[in-house]
Amino acid sequence: MKRSPEARLLPRLRVMRGSTILLGPGKADLLEAIGRLGTIRDAATELGLSYMRAWNLVQTMNDGFREPLVIVHRGGPTRGGAELTATGHAALTLYRELESEAVDATKKTWTKLRKLFRDT
Amino acid sequence: MKRSPEARLLPRLRVMRGSTILLGPGKADLLEAIGRLGTIRDAATELGLSYMRAWNLVQTMNDGFREPLVIVHRGGPTRGGAELTATGHAALTLYRELESEAVDATKKTWTKLRKLFRDT
Repeated sequence: MKRSPEARLLPRLRVMRGSTILLGPGKADLLEAIGRLGTIRDAATELGLSYMRAWNLVQTMNDGFREPLVIVHRGGPTRGGAELTATGHAALTLYRELESEAVDATKKTWTKLRKLFRDT
Repeated sequence: MKRSPEARLLPRLRVMRGSTILLGPGKADLLEAIGRLGTIRDAATELGLSYMRAWNLVQTMNDGFREPLVIVHRGGPTRGGAELTATGHAALTLYRELESEAVDATKKTWTKLRKLFRDT
């Protein structure tokens, strides 16, 4: 008898302004990958996004925040490289804090809800 | 000068089993609408879903829980009507609790993150 995988609770927190997502799970992952890999192209590849899509997500974030979250180096020795600004690091850290706070706060109720699922 | 709308934090909590969403924002809204309106068709219309789509969402929920969340009356005086079972009411209530717990727990960090957004 095939056993179903365990049920999980995923908090997908979205920061919306009007119909624009300023920050959400996908954008947070993109920031993290850019910070780690140092280029938008490599980050896009890792996340399975087109370069254009990743670039548009970065633009949306940069436009929505007081200071850009990502800076792209267009020339010089680091041409093509990208890095998170201090605001970019702060936004990513705060977003991950929101996620873990949401998970921690819901543990008790989640345990109650899980009992209603069909046995796995 | 046009002022942007205020940024909001939306917790979109997803209960996943494998790649199946057992319960999430859309399904919770559907349960709520079925409970209020008494038919899947009226609930679908209110939420802008096709009847088939709403029916499939109900089936996914009914299959994933220990007991069905929604019962459909196929004959008799309430033919075509649908109602939430006790488990359906419990699941919806617990899901709404998860949402409000997530919002409450993130208030402080959310206040910090908001300060990074461009002025509205």
